[in-house]
Amino acid sequence: MLKGNALIAQSGGPTAVINSSVCGAVQTWLNLSEQPGTIYAAVSGIKGFLNEDLIDMAAQDPAVIDALKWTPGAGLFSCRYKVSEAEYSRLVEICRKYDIRYFFYNGGNDSMDTCNKMSIAAEKLGYEMRVIGIPKTVDNDLPITDHCPGYASAAKYLAATVMECGIDLASVATKNKVCIIEAMGRNAGWLTAAAALAKRYEVAADGTVHLPANTADDAPHLIYLPEVPFDTERFLQDVQNVYDRLGYCFVVASEGIMDKDGNYIAADGKVDAFGHVQLSGAGETLKNLVEERLGLKARCNTLGTAQRSAAHFASKTDADEAYATGKQAVELALSGKTGVMVTLDRQPGEPYVCTLGEAPLANVANVEKKVPREWINETGNFVTEDFIRYAQPLIAGTLPVPMQNGLPCYTKIDATLGRVKK
Amino acid sequence: MLKGNALIAQSGGPTAVINSSVCGAVQTWLNLSEQPGTIYAAVSGIKGFLNEDLIDMAAQDPAVIDALKWTPGAGLFSCRYKVSEAEYSRLVEICRKYDIRYFFYNGGNDSMDTCNKMSIAAEKLGYEMRVIGIPKTVDNDLPITDHCPGYASAAKYLAATVMECGIDLASVATKNKVCIIEAMGRNAGWLTAAAALAKRYEVAADGTVHLPANTADDAPHLIYLPEVPFDTERFLQDVQNVYDRLGYCFVVASEGIMDKDGNYIAADGKVDAFGHVQLSGAGETLKNLVEERLGLKARCNTLGTAQRSAAHFASKTDADEAYATGKQAVELALSGKTGVMVTLDRQPGEPYVCTLGEAPLANVANVEKKVPREWINETGNFVTEDFIRYAQPLIAGTLPVPMQNGLPCYTKIDATLGRVKK
Repeated sequence: MLKGNALIAQSGGPTAVINSSVCGAVQTWLNLSEQPGTIYAAVSGIKGFLNEDLIDMAAQDPAVIDALKWTPGAGLFSCRYKVSEAEYSRLVEICRKYDIRYFFYNGGNDSMDTCNKMSIAAEKLGYEMRVIGIPKTVDNDLPITDHCPGYASAAKYLAATVMECGIDLASVATKNKVCIIEAMGRNAGWLTAAAALAKRYEVAADGTVHLPANTADDAPHLIYLPEVPFDTERFLQDVQNVYDRLGYCFVVASEGIMDKDGNYIAADGKVDAFGHVQLSGAGETLKNLVEERLGLKARCNTLGTAQRSAAHFASKTDADEAYATGKQAVELALSGKTGVMVTLDRQPGEPYVCTLGEAPLANVANVEKKVPREWINETGNFVTEDFIRYAQPLIAGTLPVPMQNGLPCYTKIDATLGRVKK
Repeated sequence: MLKGNALIAQSGGPTAVINSSVCGAVQTWLNLSEQPGTIYAAVSGIKGFLNEDLIDMAAQDPAVIDALKWTPGAGLFSCRYKVSEAEYSRLVEICRKYDIRYFFYNGGNDSMDTCNKMSIAAEKLGYEMRVIGIPKTVDNDLPITDHCPGYASAAKYLAATVMECGIDLASVATKNKVCIIEAMGRNAGWLTAAAALAKRYEVAADGTVHLPANTADDAPHLIYLPEVPFDTERFLQDVQNVYDRLGYCFVVASEGIMDKDGNYIAADGKVDAFGHVQLSGAGETLKNLVEERLGLKARCNTLGTAQRSAAHFASKTDADEAYATGKQAVELALSGKTGVMVTLDRQPGEPYVCTLGEAPLANVANVEKKVPREWINETGNFVTEDFIRYAQPLIAGTLPVPMQNGLPCYTKIDATLGRVKK
């Protein structure tokens, strides 16, 4: 056994189940009959690690660790920080200082890049360390893995919200004729696409997809993903067509929709630490378009961060898989693996079965997996049955959450406990 | 017994539990050992009634009627229509034509006015009819009744969303420092105020309110209700203060906040059928203010209609009370009462107990009950313990909803069944 301590850190935007992954990793480590060493967490991700802000997870109340299974947000705190080339050797030196031989990094594709560089740097500096990536993202855009922990919970919440707002829209004969929901998802439309699940699709055992007749006009009516260049005139025609037929129209659009020249429909020009353009207002832009060009009153519900933190209605399938990926990361590392990300591998056929696999970090770093063009209809304003078959099983089951005074009972890591002397 | 048919109709914006009220009324009527007559529903509210679009509710599948208990939106369809003085005699004539002797109208304060005028018109025209109002509104602004069906479910959902988005905000050290949520509530801040419940208040049996030390800085940090004139400079100072202390700030503001001259902070000038100004963008306005004046990056989550339709997370207390008010409406009418609205009367002391009462329609029509100034702090940017004691019991319990394929299983009234010949 490789003796030494472990380090776990979170990175990027949280999901409803990122803490479940941390719980899986930490509980698995602490339950080992023979622990290689202590399991530390870096408070505030890689920035915190650079600052040597480490806590011993064994000092946390076990009930608090367990409650991470249903607590949203980043329990260990998180950051979006692009580590410079020079800083990687510093990171390895910090690992050496605290005898960290197991490095678990829980994040999306920017994070898998950091993880990969960490792995390469450690090897180059002759420092033996097992580096494992634990996937995470509501955008569902990590490659190789069938889907990413965090995605299905956001999908479940978005679909339920679309279903409910859709019922509301159809049931009140008022001036608001068009409802637009802006969904998260920078360059990949996986989450936006999941809004389609609000329609009552039934997937038979043989895979055929059926939509009961009295539900065919349920919301959403139009879905716009960033994978298809957004055509404003086409959009307005689409909305007019639905409105003419039903008297109202329900639209779901990704925050990242772009025109054919690659300009975001709504961008304020600011960029984040990784060079990504900060998006705001695609939904507002569409709302204004509809009102000005079609003369129809429209409302835009921008759910924002509620989509990635709605643990009051998370997918149990997602939460269980998130936990399993954390657990697997530890087991892979103990078995000698390094330089890989844990993957979720869907088995072919029915019913839905998912096993755990792995992929080299180099193959997942900085790669964005987008929705296949053939899973979007020809017109580019809805998704196909292939997508429904893909997504529906992922949202099965609702994560049970303890309640107190009518609201979820979430936990907090006490970052004052088990602080490691610098 | 007054022989004759009943009519039930919905009016105004739906809530997560307005259908529960209809279910209570309809099931109670259909379960009578001796029904005075048929129970009709007007499809699309008073406009539908003017058009004589009636359906016999006994023709609906009983399972569909039962499923109204957890289905959001207006199951009988609704409208916002201001009945003109001349139309009231026409309405009474329609009642006479279909021998309607029991008139149940399920709506908010505009609707209670319609209901009152209906009652007066029938009496003036010598037409005996029992007219009962069933309260409904997320705004919670009907007077006399302690609270309104629909309010607590929206409050529960808003508070959970604030809690979750707050955790998200506090857990990621990114550029978005200020999160603003715009809450529904045209002129009364009851729903906006309920965001305060996201803080982990504990109300003891003796009524004292305690906030555990490690939760004192939880979201929300600032709450702005329309009852207090909005002061832009004060707001910016408030946000700066919280940000300086915590590094981020969570704001909840009502869509109806106004400056000291009575101008809505965000209004686009359009009015609805009842002369109410259509509001949009208070949250966006505040977001822009924060970014431009304080230089802090902010996001605004406009939950919109999700707040009034989130039956996936409704208050069981609310749903049960909504049902009870529908049931009570029928029982009051059968006992000879007319010209009243069913009220929810809270009994003093602990634990929370609510009984059913009634109030003359004339006393509730067109009156808006606002949040008492003494339940808002002096500065006007948060609520007091009195409000917490008032609101917390209302959100207790979560309404169970049957699920299918990972999403709620909502029902639809089949408006083609039991259509009454015109």
